[in-house]
Amino acid sequence: MSSAHIFSGIYAPIATPFTQDNHIHWEALANNLAFYNQSRLAGVVVLGSNGEFALLSHQEKLEMIRFVREHLVKEKLVIAGTGCESTAETMELGAQAAAVGAAAALVVTPWYYKGSYTDPVLEKHYHTIADASPIPVMLYNMPRNTGLNLAPAIVNKLAQHPNIIGVKDSSGDIVQITNIINNTPADFSVFAGSGSFLMATILAGGVGGTLAIANIMPDTCVELYEASLQGDLPKARALQKLIMQPNAAVTTGMGIAGLKKALDLIGLYGGKPRPPLQPVSPEDGTRLVKILQDAGVTVT
Amino acid sequence: MSSAHIFSGIYAPIATPFTQDNHIHWEALANNLAFYNQSRLAGVVVLGSNGEFALLSHQEKLEMIRFVREHLVKEKLVIAGTGCESTAETMELGAQAAAVGAAAALVVTPWYYKGSYTDPVLEKHYHTIADASPIPVMLYNMPRNTGLNLAPAIVNKLAQHPNIIGVKDSSGDIVQITNIINNTPADFSVFAGSGSFLMATILAGGVGGTLAIANIMPDTCVELYEASLQGDLPKARALQKLIMQPNAAVTTGMGIAGLKKALDLIGLYGGKPRPPLQPVSPEDGTRLVKILQDAGVTVT
Amino acid sequence: MSSAHIFSGIYAPIATPFTQDNHIHWEALANNLAFYNQSRLAGVVVLGSNGEFALLSHQEKLEMIRFVREHLVKEKLVIAGTGCESTAETMELGAQAAAVGAAAALVVTPWYYKGSYTDPVLEKHYHTIADASPIPVMLYNMPRNTGLNLAPAIVNKLAQHPNIIGVKDSSGDIVQITNIINNTPADFSVFAGSGSFLMATILAGGVGGTLAIANIMPDTCVELYEASLQGDLPKARALQKLIMQPNAAVTTGMGIAGLKKALDLIGLYGGKPRPPLQPVSPEDGTRLVKILQDAGVTVT
Amino acid sequence: MSSAHIFSGIYAPIATPFTQDNHIHWEALANNLAFYNQSRLAGVVVLGSNGEFALLSHQEKLEMIRFVREHLVKEKLVIAGTGCESTAETMELGAQAAAVGAAAALVVTPWYYKGSYTDPVLEKHYHTIADASPIPVMLYNMPRNTGLNLAPAIVNKLAQHPNIIGVKDSSGDIVQITNIINNTPADFSVFAGSGSFLMATILAGGVGGTLAIANIMPDTCVELYEASLQGDLPKARALQKLIMQPNAAVTTGMGIAGLKKALDLIGLYGGKPRPPLQPVSPEDGTRLVKILQDAGVTVT
Repeated sequence: MSSAHIFSGIYAPIATPFTQDNHIHWEALANNLAFYNQSRLAGVVVLGSNGEFALLSHQEKLEMIRFVREHLVKEKLVIAGTGCESTAETMELGAQAAAVGAAAALVVTPWYYKGSYTDPVLEKHYHTIADASPIPVMLYNMPRNTGLNLAPAIVNKLAQHPNIIGVKDSSGDIVQITNIINNTPADFSVFAGSGSFLMATILAGGVGGTLAIANIMPDTCVELYEASLQGDLPKARALQKLIMQPNAAVTTGMGIAGLKKALDLIGLYGGKPRPPLQPVSPEDGTRLVKILQDAGVTVT
Repeated sequence: MSSAHIFSGIYAPIATPFTQDNHIHWEALANNLAFYNQSRLAGVVVLGSNGEFALLSHQEKLEMIRFVREHLVKEKLVIAGTGCESTAETMELGAQAAAVGAAAALVVTPWYYKGSYTDPVLEKHYHTIADASPIPVMLYNMPRNTGLNLAPAIVNKLAQHPNIIGVKDSSGDIVQITNIINNTPADFSVFAGSGSFLMATILAGGVGGTLAIANIMPDTCVELYEASLQGDLPKARALQKLIMQPNAAVTTGMGIAGLKKALDLIGLYGGKPRPPLQPVSPEDGTRLVKILQDAGVTVT
Repeated sequence: MSSAHIFSGIYAPIATPFTQDNHIHWEALANNLAFYNQSRLAGVVVLGSNGEFALLSHQEKLEMIRFVREHLVKEKLVIAGTGCESTAETMELGAQAAAVGAAAALVVTPWYYKGSYTDPVLEKHYHTIADASPIPVMLYNMPRNTGLNLAPAIVNKLAQHPNIIGVKDSSGDIVQITNIINNTPADFSVFAGSGSFLMATILAGGVGGTLAIANIMPDTCVELYEASLQGDLPKARALQKLIMQPNAAVTTGMGIAGLKKALDLIGLYGGKPRPPLQPVSPEDGTRLVKILQDAGVTVT
Repeated sequence: MSSAHIFSGIYAPIATPFTQDNHIHWEALANNLAFYNQSRLAGVVVLGSNGEFALLSHQEKLEMIRFVREHLVKEKLVIAGTGCESTAETMELGAQAAAVGAAAALVVTPWYYKGSYTDPVLEKHYHTIADASPIPVMLYNMPRNTGLNLAPAIVNKLAQHPNIIGVKDSSGDIVQITNIINNTPADFSVFAGSGSFLMATILAGGVGGTLAIANIMPDTCVELYEASLQGDLPKARALQKLIMQPNAAVTTGMGIAGLKKALDLIGLYGGKPRPPLQPVSPEDGTRLVKILQDAGVTVT
């Protein structure tokens, strides 16, 4: 299934670690990446929603992409989140990302002026970006954060553009995902945007996933992906069940703060999110230990 | 998978046909049921949302259940939609449904005072009903109509009641459905509430479906169900794809009016819905012909 | 302002009292009505949302209307909530309400098949009802319960019908209310549907209110109404402020159960709501005592 | 009423004009400001939602504030929109705004990680900013864009901070606005965030407005404000009615593109919005001409 696709498999949307005084913690990042280098992940997404992209300056974003590409082993791909509110800034960051080795640009829908972002407006935005981009563009639908859903009607149209090669759909709407798979070219890559519906997406014909939980349980996510691809339903169901709770904890449950706490708990560096985001409460931290242990994760 | 379940397989939530002067058209109904008798359906749901239950009097509802049971072959089950706003009326209709041979009571969440229907209130409502019901109770979650979602937290609790044997979930939220399957007893029956996510539900471990489109393409739905149960992914994906468009047309697209028009088009009796519902426009009728033909349905 | 209007002033949407065994408690109702007879209310609404209309049988509804009309003094009007999901049943109940002396029929939008209730469908529904109704029809927009908003576009159109004489808008959207006032005939009665925006509605040009809190503080509501009508802003603001908390408690805060508890507290009969609705918790009851006392209400 | 308030009266949230090649058009901006200098406005808001702040770089924002302050007459105040997703960047921009003469910082709620922005998180965000800000902070609630409502509970708490002096509420929820007015100190400034509910806000006790339509009809808005303050209801209602349609056109109806087109039509410079925002269609332009003319605006 996935052989025809440039992009497939499991990606971790990595966290951006900060020092106590709120700068990017490069040493911690290098250390985290060394862990992912040892994993079976296909690559990482830098500057996804979990990477706190909306809280970084343009300069910080560029440095993040460069650093991650330099520290990730060559055979793993780097997908860079380049979506900004403005079309022009998205194009600029995309060109810069390409120059430092990103394999693709993940472009979230713009979000603030959502009342004005009709389908024709979004179509023009994405076409302008894709026309100019030196690297392939992957659409990114994240309604929980953007308040905007990128509906099948427009995704299926955009999928005709030669430089738009896939979509990361975080809506969790399996009917929508099925519609997109059914109505896009065979080599268009449909990725699950969360671990909670990875099995359903792959069984429907999707080819990958960008999953917060892949930061914590990378190889388990790869196994779930492979079992789903191979149609091994008992194994896929069991693995899907295994990751449900930790996945919920590091996404809808405790947000980025939960993801960072989980990184700390498995011996990587999570640290604090950038304000206004706040760390998890001690109570949530304790709950998280139990959730991870119940899923068989070794907590340090 | 489904052998342990009392209820499994594909059910058609049948339409309630009306005469020109707005009474139930018994002859047409008998004729429609004769068609379902010839199908591979496990049974029918009478007084589901598609059966316009909210537009029928209590007396009409009771007559519908009796008539359908009398005209459906014995080996097919009748599930009766007995959910009313009031707990007491739901209990009364449930007892009457049992008395005329319904195999289970499908109880939609109450809907009008949704601001007051907290989880403890819903729990008490369902426990009171299930305690008294002579027949098993199936929960029915239909947020598009009720404006209320029956969340996994409460479904998983209610599933412990010995007389609550399953849930029809029409939310289409595969994460929610997966959560329910993972956290309810092995013999709790999780049904897809629409054809658009039947494959995803069965692959996740669900055991049946109550599908508007099963009124029009009953045996195709059964084949999709079986292919999914058997893990035949290529076949399941192809059949799922085949029904997507006609399913959308007779549900979210054109509503009950679309379902009734489709019944007319395949040689059964659909007729007009009861006002305030209105028939489809001629343009929609023409679109529907094409959608059905594209899905291989013979249109008369 | 209000002199041109058939309907103006403050109405209490009365509760339907139940006995311990869940029948209508006629004696208690008569007693409550005696209290309203002594008040300065323009009348009462029977079978509003607060009257638990959605939990009553057709027969109970008819008896309620008759009884209330018989027990309310002649100079006070009875507006009957006659809206049912079905057009035909709404017409039937409206005719019966007229026969027993209701002055107007308050017709809530239908709610269950909300996806199909487009503006043309609603227009046809209301025109059919208004054409046949022996008494004037008042539209009723209650989005919190129905999940459907009756937008200015359709209200302004419906206001042209000679037998549609007003709207009770419970949306609380003052922009919408202003739009309706601006674009309907001068004698079209726009009523606030809750005490929390009564002042704003009257100052914008509305002429009345149907307010849950008018069951508890009828004359205070009338004073607020009159101060607003007369443009006495300091007095209107002070009275509006006075009722904010008790109003919230008996509507969004504690629902119908809160309204009934408040009735008990002021020496009328509230009792329990009909299940699935549940009485307030003891803690909420205690809070309610304080809220009422803070607003100057004598609690028994 | 307004004498106790540092901030009161009508402000225009000015547009940011762009050249054909998408840079800020300083000459056009100076020209627009000359027009507002002649008006009776209390001041302008630079970098509000209408100022396309979300599409500007940090450097552009700072230049905008400085330029506007330099070109606006001294007696008119400049309120600068300084809200960014990040707490630190909001503080930095606020300090810079103060240094170039902004009278207050208007701080919109952060928006992207809305699932994590609980009341305690927002409280900490605003306290941190207000503690450090050299100029007073005004809260900005814009749920239509942010997907987040700043509820009375938190506004009323934040209003206790000595450096948080008001709120611009664009929700249009008059119950919420009334609650805030009732429960904040007497010198806390509650501003309407749109012309459609200016009268209602002032009559409820608010003291100002920041209104897109004030860019087009500044003195009419001031007259509406004054008539409302003075309790001249007939005049206030007539003026409120006059601005309803043009207000809707340049806000929810046609968005920023509509506002910019209206600027062009009255002889100022609007030009194109920054992509992804697109200009109005020719048809909308024609509609806008009529809407403005109907409201007595001279169109060039």
